[in-house]
Amino acid sequence: MSGRLAVIGLGPGDARFLTPEAADEIAGADALYGYAPYLARLPEQAGQARHASDNREEIARASAALDHAAGGARVAIVSGGDPGVFAMAAAVCEAIDSGPAAWREIEIRVVPGITAMLAVAAAVGAPLGHDFCAISLSDNLKPWDLVERRLDAAASAGFAIALYNPASKARPWQLGAAFDRLRQHLPPATPVIFGRAVGRADERVTVAALADADPAHADMATLVIIGSAATRAIARRGLPPLVYSPRSARA
Amino acid sequence: MSGRLAVIGLGPGDARFLTPEAADEIAGADALYGYAPYLARLPEQAGQARHASDNREEIARASAALDHAAGGARVAIVSGGDPGVFAMAAAVCEAIDSGPAAWREIEIRVVPGITAMLAVAAAVGAPLGHDFCAISLSDNLKPWDLVERRLDAAASAGFAIALYNPASKARPWQLGAAFDRLRQHLPPATPVIFGRAVGRADERVTVAALADADPAHADMATLVIIGSAATRAIARRGLPPLVYSPRSARA
Repeated sequence: MSGRLAVIGLGPGDARFLTPEAADEIAGADALYGYAPYLARLPEQAGQARHASDNREEIARASAALDHAAGGARVAIVSGGDPGVFAMAAAVCEAIDSGPAAWREIEIRVVPGITAMLAVAAAVGAPLGHDFCAISLSDNLKPWDLVERRLDAAASAGFAIALYNPASKARPWQLGAAFDRLRQHLPPATPVIFGRAVGRADERVTVAALADADPAHADMATLVIIGSAATRAIARRGLPPLVYSPRSARA
Repeated sequence: MSGRLAVIGLGPGDARFLTPEAADEIAGADALYGYAPYLARLPEQAGQARHASDNREEIARASAALDHAAGGARVAIVSGGDPGVFAMAAAVCEAIDSGPAAWREIEIRVVPGITAMLAVAAAVGAPLGHDFCAISLSDNLKPWDLVERRLDAAASAGFAIALYNPASKARPWQLGAAFDRLRQHLPPATPVIFGRAVGRADERVTVAALADADPAHADMATLVIIGSAATRAIARRGLPPLVYSPRSARA
């Protein structure tokens, strides 16, 4: 009697990003697991249990949900953004990989969502319109020198860069160090986009030049995009600038 | 009298991926522009004009839509996946950047969608659960040696790689050349995912080892993900393997 576990992306904060597939999966679940603020976005539903947990307890949350599903239930874990991008889908796979054999019999369904970099990019134009990469700036799970090596590789090869987890109270200096590193590869005018709380009522998106980009503008709710050397900003009278990466590139 | 242009992502083929925001923007448009197969997904609406065009006419389509919006209309361009990822949002920005001054007064709204790599990743687990990059393999708009340099940079720095536009009738050898290049950096067992027509009735997702990956499995409707050296496949009895990239990494 093996159940089913859906790992569902809610997209950025607002319900206007929630796909019909995600809404259907949530409605059909016997129990929801998730970081408390994500669960709080969803209306209560009769007969549906809720298990809120702290942000840092990803493996514990995955294991509890897998245990529940292994008993035959239809269980869902909800995740902000897309569950496959620095989020719960990898944690669930890790738990299965090192967990009891019974967990390999559970049907796993990952339901994609709008990940933060797509919403932030959309808010300013198309900074990810050419080749780009996504890097988690957190050095909780990897050494800082590996982060630096990836920043070097990405910027010198002409990728735009989306930085997830750019800062937190416990990681105050990393974004400044990343900007310093990128200044060695990119022109001073390279656009840097700070997207905070995108899709929520307190959304704030700002654009700076790399030379002046202030890491203090980022916190846990911020996604940062750094353009490539080819990324351009179009000034517009009475409207915010449009930032985009041209589709074409020269060698 | 400057109008409004929305550039809307429909997500992968099926309506279950269409966000409420995208549906609202489509419903409110005076006119829709787009590649004919994308327009064909949407129900006809009384009083709403439709302008279908060929896949290759991106700048012409953007310019026509901007001209229309400049007259005061509420115009929408629809795009598969996310409009900001190798799609129409960058083409619109390029057209504005080199177009008449009046186009800079048009309100531009980019509406994000589920881009193909997120849907393909979700279909197999979490191969993009760690740092990753997205590369368009088309050498129509950039030289092939730049593509190769980016493949080298991404694979050697430990990024998983999503390849958009891996093949077409006019570009038959590029994916094979990319696999050969990546074999110089990555172990033979590195998982390669071919996601064809994801979200459509004829969806087909297959996983191969890099050593055996056959470029003939890809066509214009395919997205390819190549794992990093750390990406793992979990074998499951009676279920397809789960492919994921662990959240942690060593230097």
